[in-house]
Amino acid sequence: MPDTLNQTTSQLLDAVSAGLQVHDLGRLLTVGMPQSPNHPAYWHSLPRRHGDMVRADGGSAANDMISMGTHVGTHIDALAHVSQDGKLYGDLDAADALEGGRYARLGVHTIEPMLRRGVLLDVPAALGVERLEAGQEITVDHLEATLSAQGTRIQAGDVVLIRSGWGQHFDAGDGDTYRGLSTGVPGVGEAGATWLAGQDVHAAGADTIAFERLAPGAGHGLLPAHRVLLVESGIYIIEALDLEGIAAAGVHEFLFVLSPLPLFGATGSPVRPLAVVGA
Amino acid sequence: MPDTLNQTTSQLLDAVSAGLQVHDLGRLLTVGMPQSPNHPAYWHSLPRRHGDMVRADGGSAANDMISMGTHVGTHIDALAHVSQDGKLYGDLDAADALEGGRYARLGVHTIEPMLRRGVLLDVPAALGVERLEAGQEITVDHLEATLSAQGTRIQAGDVVLIRSGWGQHFDAGDGDTYRGLSTGVPGVGEAGATWLAGQDVHAAGADTIAFERLAPGAGHGLLPAHRVLLVESGIYIIEALDLEGIAAAGVHEFLFVLSPLPLFGATGSPVRPLAVVGA
Amino acid sequence: MPDTLNQTTSQLLDAVSAGLQVHDLGRLLTVGMPQSPNHPAYWHSLPRRHGDMVRADGGSAANDMISMGTHVGTHIDALAHVSQDGKLYGDLDAADALEGGRYARLGVHTIEPMLRRGVLLDVPAALGVERLEAGQEITVDHLEATLSAQGTRIQAGDVVLIRSGWGQHFDAGDGDTYRGLSTGVPGVGEAGATWLAGQDVHAAGADTIAFERLAPGAGHGLLPAHRVLLVESGIYIIEALDLEGIAAAGVHEFLFVLSPLPLFGATGSPVRPLAVVGA
Amino acid sequence: MPDTLNQTTSQLLDAVSAGLQVHDLGRLLTVGMPQSPNHPAYWHSLPRRHGDMVRADGGSAANDMISMGTHVGTHIDALAHVSQDGKLYGDLDAADALEGGRYARLGVHTIEPMLRRGVLLDVPAALGVERLEAGQEITVDHLEATLSAQGTRIQAGDVVLIRSGWGQHFDAGDGDTYRGLSTGVPGVGEAGATWLAGQDVHAAGADTIAFERLAPGAGHGLLPAHRVLLVESGIYIIEALDLEGIAAAGVHEFLFVLSPLPLFGATGSPVRPLAVVGA
Repeated sequence: MPDTLNQTTSQLLDAVSAGLQVHDLGRLLTVGMPQSPNHPAYWHSLPRRHGDMVRADGGSAANDMISMGTHVGTHIDALAHVSQDGKLYGDLDAADALEGGRYARLGVHTIEPMLRRGVLLDVPAALGVERLEAGQEITVDHLEATLSAQGTRIQAGDVVLIRSGWGQHFDAGDGDTYRGLSTGVPGVGEAGATWLAGQDVHAAGADTIAFERLAPGAGHGLLPAHRVLLVESGIYIIEALDLEGIAAAGVHEFLFVLSPLPLFGATGSPVRPLAVVGA
Repeated sequence: MPDTLNQTTSQLLDAVSAGLQVHDLGRLLTVGMPQSPNHPAYWHSLPRRHGDMVRADGGSAANDMISMGTHVGTHIDALAHVSQDGKLYGDLDAADALEGGRYARLGVHTIEPMLRRGVLLDVPAALGVERLEAGQEITVDHLEATLSAQGTRIQAGDVVLIRSGWGQHFDAGDGDTYRGLSTGVPGVGEAGATWLAGQDVHAAGADTIAFERLAPGAGHGLLPAHRVLLVESGIYIIEALDLEGIAAAGVHEFLFVLSPLPLFGATGSPVRPLAVVGA
Repeated sequence: MPDTLNQTTSQLLDAVSAGLQVHDLGRLLTVGMPQSPNHPAYWHSLPRRHGDMVRADGGSAANDMISMGTHVGTHIDALAHVSQDGKLYGDLDAADALEGGRYARLGVHTIEPMLRRGVLLDVPAALGVERLEAGQEITVDHLEATLSAQGTRIQAGDVVLIRSGWGQHFDAGDGDTYRGLSTGVPGVGEAGATWLAGQDVHAAGADTIAFERLAPGAGHGLLPAHRVLLVESGIYIIEALDLEGIAAAGVHEFLFVLSPLPLFGATGSPVRPLAVVGA
Repeated sequence: MPDTLNQTTSQLLDAVSAGLQVHDLGRLLTVGMPQSPNHPAYWHSLPRRHGDMVRADGGSAANDMISMGTHVGTHIDALAHVSQDGKLYGDLDAADALEGGRYARLGVHTIEPMLRRGVLLDVPAALGVERLEAGQEITVDHLEATLSAQGTRIQAGDVVLIRSGWGQHFDAGDGDTYRGLSTGVPGVGEAGATWLAGQDVHAAGADTIAFERLAPGAGHGLLPAHRVLLVESGIYIIEALDLEGIAAAGVHEFLFVLSPLPLFGATGSPVRPLAVVGA
């Protein structure tokens, strides 16, 4: 006798049958891609290629060797990533989060996989520009104008993705401008982060390397939005998203899917998030 | 004016609102976890902990350093992983798949993210045992008896997960038995793989380290199911899944979600797959 | 007008002209070699092989990717490697030795390159056995009997290498026995280490993985000789030396040469030490 | 009865007793140091610090995790590093040098440890400048003028180190200028390399990142001296040496000591070479 499916399960499987369109929000991981100099660079090599060692039956396996930081490519920040005055989220002493040399508490392995309502805030589209300027702050007015232009509402528990258009520099292979260590990067500041926290979002993402506004010449040193979101609000941050395709498709609401690698005690994970809609 | 949502998109978001239950099929990645000796072991360290470098404003960031193979933890095999007589899937010469020293063709970055119907074949439950025996082959009869006992049908394009119960050894911390290099591991053989290919599945997974049956004393050297699935059929293989929880919950049909890291030119990726049903 | 060489420099260069015999005491570093499970395993891969990328002029360069611990292969322990009751050598608080997350004090970069008188204590030769037994302690009596049998004297500042013959298991490819995690390894105990410290040696080495005696079944957990030498005496320890060749040659006194990699803030370094005599 | 020492051995040990001065020619290996972007960057982290895991007896061990290329810091190029028209030194087909995916032939593990006569050619001292200019070629005339000014002769089998003064940029922390990817680096060209090969030297080194002259704007793409030395002559190349101290000391002849890590099948090794003279 077959299982009787739960109604919601049926709904999900019916949606699959009807046809889904999956927008891939993750960047290809390639050696030499732009990333923050604070983290070990992504490297990959094949220790064994086909033909290096062939079994008697003609079979052969190739394999890989990877070294990297976790804040590379499109990635998520765990709450253990940032502290303020020695404290992590929930007033947890940073030293108490460690166990055997890893962040047993608030590490990336504690992030539950996400299947949530996702919202794109396409700021340059709302402002009628191709992309924002280097070092431009995305203000609360910008965020509200974007919601209004799109006719989108944010609900508690949503994942909110903020597009600046800066990912075009990644696509163009202009890593220095994308990273903007000396020239700056657009994004929300403390005010925008506080506004997001006020909406009770579950996670917030952007198409830039550090999520928040980087002032020209300031490097990656001062990160107030990280403090507001990670330390004060327990809201995860997703960085280096590819939001160009979903923006071109005009998709503003979607099923957001993200399943971080459960790297025990780590402060982040590379991820390949998805925005799913009907085909 | 708000966007009008596509009907399928609404269905997905309604399902989210109704409440989802997410079964996490990925193993925690920990230093020292059981993995194949053919691949670089997973290692993780924190180059910077909180307090190592505190900014003037009291903020501090911790970060990570990872080294690993890609066939570590719960992972997926790309089609570039295995060749037979010098050929990959689609009769592609293995040397022609390389570009600049990486598998530009059939590498793991070419695997599309999966949101598909998933089916669990809970073989030990159907056979009335706690788990299968070391080196036991899961035959076509076993597979069909399991489908019948469960009342489940496989559809073309599904992802089929085969439980042997062997993951209990992983849970128990008995890595040597789990890997079974000398003592063997249960799983399908060439016949079972051929049967799966005949069902036109999209991917096949198991709760063991190499997916297929390992005969006692044979190591990881002969892998006929890999040949049938990866080389002859273009069917992805997912290994080291945690299927104990979903089996205990009696879930046999679900939305299967998997989003491999797009590691350019690599032969596999660690993943954290999900089985999603209504709450 | 040519430089006038210092007399000692001339002596060194005359020795070179006369002909030197260099005994290589370092083990080949290969993927899969026996090493302690406490440290990241040595892995190596070629990201680029010849032909992957050929310049217009027909030139091509191949390169490497390495990941490893530092206590791999033949290696030296820095004083920062071991602490007792929170203190490193010189009563330095272990936390005070850290700077920015690395051992700025007593790290391996603080070890001066060694060109010193070296002495081999060939214990099995003195005892008339091929090699010592698993878990056998090398006693002070053994050490003194060996000196006497060889007619060797130790001088302050020497580097003393103690042969047990256990390296024969490394040569034979029997990594499990060589590591002896369950079966034990011969070596000096606390008494032997105290005797060495009493001779005021500069460094002490052995042909085993952990330098000191490992009792059968005790793993690598209790290391009293490390405490005596590193923490109490400031004497460096060199492990996994290849002493078979020099022993076969009957060489007991030599110029010992060791130049550890100056890995800033690390606790050890792989090395390739040399024993140099006249040809 | 004591061993009778070989006369040359006695000479070496007498030199040790008389007192040696060891000039350390190796650069400190630090995260972020200047290196070629073609190679995996040097990274280091401490997985375990003191206190993370303390044994019942109060003892604790700290350890390391390293990832890197081999052409990082001060390093030596193996003959397997460069090919021309598919051939390595000795007309060996590059593909034939591979075994199981590593350079079993001409890999860095085939370099014998060096204790040889070393010669410093202090070009800027001979030319009366602090250091050479970016992109300046060191000509044969420069080399001969330097020998003449110093009163030094090169003998067959020597290791010859060519100082440009460019290491001052490394010391000053100006990594971009040191690497000179766009602005160029001084060094010998094809003519200088041919001259060195004509002297039958065993190895040649420099205080720059690529040994040879890099023309402004040319990057690291064209390396004729590598072809002449490695491929045509079998002469090893040592890069990124620290020659400032030895130059300041006015030392031009010395015992040169170099013991590369025997990384099986690799194309290079980080090293810490020494120039030894009487104290």
